[in-house]
Amino acid sequence: MTLMLFSLLGAVAALLYAVINAIKIKKYPEGTDKMKKISESIRTGAKAYLRRQYRGVAIFFAIMFVVLLVLSLFKLLNMFVPFAFLTGGVFSGLAGFFGMRIATASNARTAWAAKESLNSGLKVAFSAGSVMGFVVVGLGLLDTGLWYILLNWYYTHINIVSEAERIVAISSAMVTFGIGASCMALFARVGGGIFTKAADVGADIVGKVETGIPEDDPRNPAVIADNVGDNVGDVAGMGADLYESFSGARLSAAALAVSAGLGVAGFALPMILSAVGVVASIIGSLFVKTKENADQRSLLGALRRGTYISSVIIPVASYFLVRMILGAENIGVFFAILSGLVAGNIIGFFTEYYTSDTYSPTRKLSDSSETGAATIIINGLGLGMRSTAIPVIIVGASVLISFYLAGRSADGVNMAMGLFGVAISAVGMLSTLSITLATDAYGPVADNAGGIAEMAGLGEEVRERTDALDSLGNTTAATGKGFAIGSAALTALALIVSYLDQIKIIDPSYTIDLSITNPTTLIGLFVGAMLPFLFSSLTMGAVGRAAHSIALEVRRQFKSIPGIMEGTADPDYASCVDICTKSAQKQMLLPAVIAVVSPILVGVLLGVNGVAGMLCGLTITGFALAIMMSNSGGAWDNAKKYIEKDTAHGKGSDRHKAAVVGDTVGDPFKDTSGPAINILIKLISIVSIVFAAFTMHIHLL
Amino acid sequence: MTLMLFSLLGAVAALLYAVINAIKIKKYPEGTDKMKKISESIRTGAKAYLRRQYRGVAIFFAIMFVVLLVLSLFKLLNMFVPFAFLTGGVFSGLAGFFGMRIATASNARTAWAAKESLNSGLKVAFSAGSVMGFVVVGLGLLDTGLWYILLNWYYTHINIVSEAERIVAISSAMVTFGIGASCMALFARVGGGIFTKAADVGADIVGKVETGIPEDDPRNPAVIADNVGDNVGDVAGMGADLYESFSGARLSAAALAVSAGLGVAGFALPMILSAVGVVASIIGSLFVKTKENADQRSLLGALRRGTYISSVIIPVASYFLVRMILGAENIGVFFAILSGLVAGNIIGFFTEYYTSDTYSPTRKLSDSSETGAATIIINGLGLGMRSTAIPVIIVGASVLISFYLAGRSADGVNMAMGLFGVAISAVGMLSTLSITLATDAYGPVADNAGGIAEMAGLGEEVRERTDALDSLGNTTAATGKGFAIGSAALTALALIVSYLDQIKIIDPSYTIDLSITNPTTLIGLFVGAMLPFLFSSLTMGAVGRAAHSIALEVRRQFKSIPGIMEGTADPDYASCVDICTKSAQKQMLLPAVIAVVSPILVGVLLGVNGVAGMLCGLTITGFALAIMMSNSGGAWDNAKKYIEKDTAHGKGSDRHKAAVVGDTVGDPFKDTSGPAINILIKLISIVSIVFAAFTMHIHLL
Repeated sequence: MTLMLFSLLGAVAALLYAVINAIKIKKYPEGTDKMKKISESIRTGAKAYLRRQYRGVAIFFAIMFVVLLVLSLFKLLNMFVPFAFLTGGVFSGLAGFFGMRIATASNARTAWAAKESLNSGLKVAFSAGSVMGFVVVGLGLLDTGLWYILLNWYYTHINIVSEAERIVAISSAMVTFGIGASCMALFARVGGGIFTKAADVGADIVGKVETGIPEDDPRNPAVIADNVGDNVGDVAGMGADLYESFSGARLSAAALAVSAGLGVAGFALPMILSAVGVVASIIGSLFVKTKENADQRSLLGALRRGTYISSVIIPVASYFLVRMILGAENIGVFFAILSGLVAGNIIGFFTEYYTSDTYSPTRKLSDSSETGAATIIINGLGLGMRSTAIPVIIVGASVLISFYLAGRSADGVNMAMGLFGVAISAVGMLSTLSITLATDAYGPVADNAGGIAEMAGLGEEVRERTDALDSLGNTTAATGKGFAIGSAALTALALIVSYLDQIKIIDPSYTIDLSITNPTTLIGLFVGAMLPFLFSSLTMGAVGRAAHSIALEVRRQFKSIPGIMEGTADPDYASCVDICTKSAQKQMLLPAVIAVVSPILVGVLLGVNGVAGMLCGLTITGFALAIMMSNSGGAWDNAKKYIEKDTAHGKGSDRHKAAVVGDTVGDPFKDTSGPAINILIKLISIVSIVFAAFTMHIHLL
Repeated sequence: MTLMLFSLLGAVAALLYAVINAIKIKKYPEGTDKMKKISESIRTGAKAYLRRQYRGVAIFFAIMFVVLLVLSLFKLLNMFVPFAFLTGGVFSGLAGFFGMRIATASNARTAWAAKESLNSGLKVAFSAGSVMGFVVVGLGLLDTGLWYILLNWYYTHINIVSEAERIVAISSAMVTFGIGASCMALFARVGGGIFTKAADVGADIVGKVETGIPEDDPRNPAVIADNVGDNVGDVAGMGADLYESFSGARLSAAALAVSAGLGVAGFALPMILSAVGVVASIIGSLFVKTKENADQRSLLGALRRGTYISSVIIPVASYFLVRMILGAENIGVFFAILSGLVAGNIIGFFTEYYTSDTYSPTRKLSDSSETGAATIIINGLGLGMRSTAIPVIIVGASVLISFYLAGRSADGVNMAMGLFGVAISAVGMLSTLSITLATDAYGPVADNAGGIAEMAGLGEEVRERTDALDSLGNTTAATGKGFAIGSAALTALALIVSYLDQIKIIDPSYTIDLSITNPTTLIGLFVGAMLPFLFSSLTMGAVGRAAHSIALEVRRQFKSIPGIMEGTADPDYASCVDICTKSAQKQMLLPAVIAVVSPILVGVLLGVNGVAGMLCGLTITGFALAIMMSNSGGAWDNAKKYIEKDTAHGKGSDRHKAAVVGDTVGDPFKDTSGPAINILIKLISIVSIVFAAFTMHIHLL
């Protein structure tokens, strides 16, 4: 109990630090009246979207709540799950909401600060990112801490069980508590992703490609929608997304610690590790500053310094943590944490290697635009596919190291400890989440600032500075994505093991046969491997259709509003925002329903072995597909930017046009479908756990 | 022994029927002198390519032969395997070679016959396809039959073992005999695929997109290379490919029959079933004819009639076969065969549904060209991803049905019989291979005929007729691909089971733990899921690079050869053929090496459980990725053709240009990477089996 107080302390520290940053931002001026006006319309659009989204999601949550309540009345589910489902959803939604609020409050301020100096721009944007990073972690720790206190009280005073049973009851209930966060994250990522990319693609197709006006040109009717999209997709979506990664990793690690016999101490370790991560991140973020006359390289150095300092504090602290909490005999767990942290950094580096124009893959990709759009598409897809190899090897090595070092014991390998090792390595990977997320979320703010600078006519110099900040954001975002993808794979594995544990807890006599020669497991594997493809098809199709509507609307306005091209008449920005909002709301439903229904359906048709196979197939294929889509998309984006820097073949050239096609295809890849697969994997795993008892009662095979 | 004679009889029947068709074709005239000249240059190019390819492959085969010989000297491999490796390679190569010879002999004849009537054109092209189809099946049955006689003789006279042991020794040796065919198939598919798509893409990029001259225009320097490519890629590649599918399916089914305790009768069943398939295909192909004034719909009807008649004969015949050979108590095996055949047809239908412009998916895809290249790429990828769902469900259902019906016994499910059921369903799916392959291989012949008609200036009417034949070919090719993909998945599953059987035969005490909670299996699964992505990246990258060289060469010739655009000077066709040949030879090596080395490396690092996991991950992800790539590619191709039929937005319009980008991206998808994945899956499986004893001796984990 006292141990868990550290978790709440961590929550308070994180939220306080977020508030301090928010106050700091508010002190900066928002700039000219025009800037205020633009910023206000972005804010209004983003708020309107989120309001609509939460309204739609509320209906879904209400239905799910009733379903879960019925399950728990039939004793097929712990009675707290329906309520934890709601709190998880609300907290995850709040994380996205606060992130969006602060981001829309910071965009104009960043632009105005960039007028002063690059360093000031960095400060504002990074503070905005920090609010997001620390809010996500703080709310996550708060949710878990409060529920733990409640459950602990319940099992000590109301439903009295022995001390040994108590932590089993708590951990097996809480492992399902991620379901609310996962559902909300899926809606936020998919809905926000559709919105942002529909606006971006639609604006680019007609604006950049057909009409030849620059990006963020105020004459483009979709320009406000595009900026709103950055906030609802890249900020609010990412916030909800990482909130759920963070929850899933900690809760599954805690559950596996308990089944490895580590009791309350084991349960508390992932929470305390995360709390220590908050402190490490605060220390790290204090080092993010640079000289007044800094260039881009030293800016990157400043951001990196913050992350690296945090990454160095964690191993030192966690060494003592593990020794104190679990004892010197379990020091292997420390190596598991370390391996996760190192793996996250390596995957992050290779994400950058494959997608940044400072390395050869993206440079070569931009060369292939010489022979047109088709070759840049073919080579970009190839680049993404190739880039799956190293993360797979790194995750594999990390699993092996965590398993064998944490599981090492006098009499061979302790299976349960080994599996806990794999789960805690995911927590290790996410321990510096506050600061990696801060460096990630700062990107869209800088992007928006650039848009506002362009629209408000702040001049070349400011735009150049915001572009520098933005391009830096792409690099740090790549690293952040590496962490998100790597931790998703490890967490998903932990959840599969938790699923099997749950089956054993519910009915110890249930025969589980996960051999690939068992036809139900085998078919489960096939179905699981297919799901990420089906899901990506739906999300990409949604972006395609929504972008098509936006493109038609932009064309219509160009034709029907006289004076729009001369800048004498304002385009109708609101109609584009409205189309995006409606499309996103309509189109996000089917993917979400598939994610929730498929594990139940597979469970009913194929039973537990089929579900376990499906989870496994889903994780391995989803991992590879998500990396491919993210990296192809990132590389196309930066290949295009690389061409724009080239004076000979810059904007408007045939090569640039080809690169824009690549960038446009990459948009839904990297910002809608790719990241959504990570959530899909975990959501399906958690739904499987929640419905485990149900499908054990009702199944065909 | 007497049973196996039916296999040889089937071989003789198939080869005889092929010869009859070849003689029939030779009687047709080759047309004008210009046609003869063009046809001759295609023939020369194709021969030169194949000669070069076989020379390169010979070195690879020599090295592999030595490796296998060393393994067999160390008693880590049956001593016949190195030699069977060679015969498999030679027979598979021969299948491709004969197919290519007859195709290059028939293209001008088809064009000339189409001048007479559509029906005559169909006759010649279909006869050419038939030669290919029956040669593949005939050589396959011949190879197996001869080896069986040799091994039977060896184990009766030289290394005398009991009758019961004899068939175990024979079947466990012969299950590895597919390795030669698989290696050759990979080279043929990858090398040929790179050649044909480099030429096609390169020719299109500069010819169609930049310069705006029509397809197959004799002024395009890459036009001959493009036509050569159809023959070395789509014909020779496909021949070698399906030869190996056919071998793999029969040999693994035979091995599993023996481990299910069915003895010689069980071993013979897949062979006899294939021999019966030859007869059924001959009968079916006799019905492929149409009235003189036939339209496209009745042409398709004619081709379909042939396939359907064969598909009806098989179930009737196999019902009696199973009763006679295995006895009435094993009649469940008949249902397994039937389920495979039905599954193949359903998957074939849905392949057509997703890729033919007579159905809504492709029509909608062509609509999305309205907003440019990016949207047609996004939607095409989405279409391919979506199209994976039904094949997965069908294969899943077929596995369940085969497993439970064939495995049904008085005391529950007989596991070994059930797994044999899954394997024999693949043989059932491929039982009508001769005729499905005939309808498939006829396509490239018609395509070439169209090219020759264009270049020789035979006039609009002839070109229209060859186009009708060609577009029909696309439809039937889709069905053929459905069979190839479906049977690859089922065969791969059978090979995984065979692998595990081999482990048990080599060392019955070896502990196999295929649970997904075993970290080595788990990492194997991850690596397996990543391999198809890595492999596709390499093959697509190869096409991209080769196409780039071709595009530069075509541009160079357009600039440097005066009078080329006016048609007064001939382009240098040979240089393009040469570039394609060299690129294909250079680039096909790495993918092949990865396919051979990765299972050995995984075996050495992770042991048997890791290899089994890898095979499983590879099969499930490869299956989905192969379907996606094939169907996206097919749909883009037909979406482009659909736009070309539209008079308002036809050739030269912006919509058409966007569709050409889609088609170009789809080229390596559908004709290089996609089909090569099927071979990759089986090759890695067979290499794992061949090196099983080796990796059981030497491994880290």
